[in-house]
Amino acid sequence: MSNSIPESYRDLFQKRAFAHLATLMPDGTPQVTPVWCDYDGTHIRINSAKGRVKDRNMRRNPQVALEIMDPDNPYRYLSVRGRVTEITETGADTHIDSLAKKYLGQDTYPYRTAAEVRVLYKIRPDRVSSMG
Amino acid sequence: MSNSIPESYRDLFQKRAFAHLATLMPDGTPQVTPVWCDYDGTHIRINSAKGRVKDRNMRRNPQVALEIMDPDNPYRYLSVRGRVTEITETGADTHIDSLAKKYLGQDTYPYRTAAEVRVLYKIRPDRVSSMG
Repeated sequence: MSNSIPESYRDLFQKRAFAHLATLMPDGTPQVTPVWCDYDGTHIRINSAKGRVKDRNMRRNPQVALEIMDPDNPYRYLSVRGRVTEITETGADTHIDSLAKKYLGQDTYPYRTAAEVRVLYKIRPDRVSSMG
Repeated sequence: MSNSIPESYRDLFQKRAFAHLATLMPDGTPQVTPVWCDYDGTHIRINSAKGRVKDRNMRRNPQVALEIMDPDNPYRYLSVRGRVTEITETGADTHIDSLAKKYLGQDTYPYRTAAEVRVLYKIRPDRVSSMG
């Protein structure tokens, strides 16, 4: 158990591996959805749109967890418990484009809608366990 | 949003799709790990061993969530919020063997240890959303 991402597992962030993100509903029960992610060397970063369930959940309660499975070996994964330490719209559009490049091979995020406000979340890993 | 698994997504349980299971730690924060799963027509069933973190979490707090992604299309998935309604050792060994058949193609679960007590958990879906 560590509070940083082991060097030997950082390759997961180079792959098209999804983070399975758990956030907490208003009643304290969990919810899980897949999200694109990357790692800036300190924080795991994800991206969503303002007003979505996970956006509202993380603004209310910054305690989250996520699991990232190696797409080449499902028995190799990271399980992270942590805290959202920053929620910002600054850089969120550039960030979703960089995730679109990583996950779709496209320079620009193709699903952007006029009404949607992109949001970038930085997650500080507090407990990291690795398997496989 | 439904409280049952849509017919059109039940194929996910025929595939080697993992459930990304969120349980709640003693302090109410979430934890996520991948688990094998199946569906008995009413409950999503998972299997673990007595004393593991997720086992202790589900005994303390039956509120869980899980997400199951189509291994053939990561943009197609189920997100389920629900409650563990039964925790039993009865049938748990047979169940882990059937999951080993599904996920590994082996008749007998190959990782059994002498000290480990297998446990079967039945999860009642309360909120099911599907994507893709």
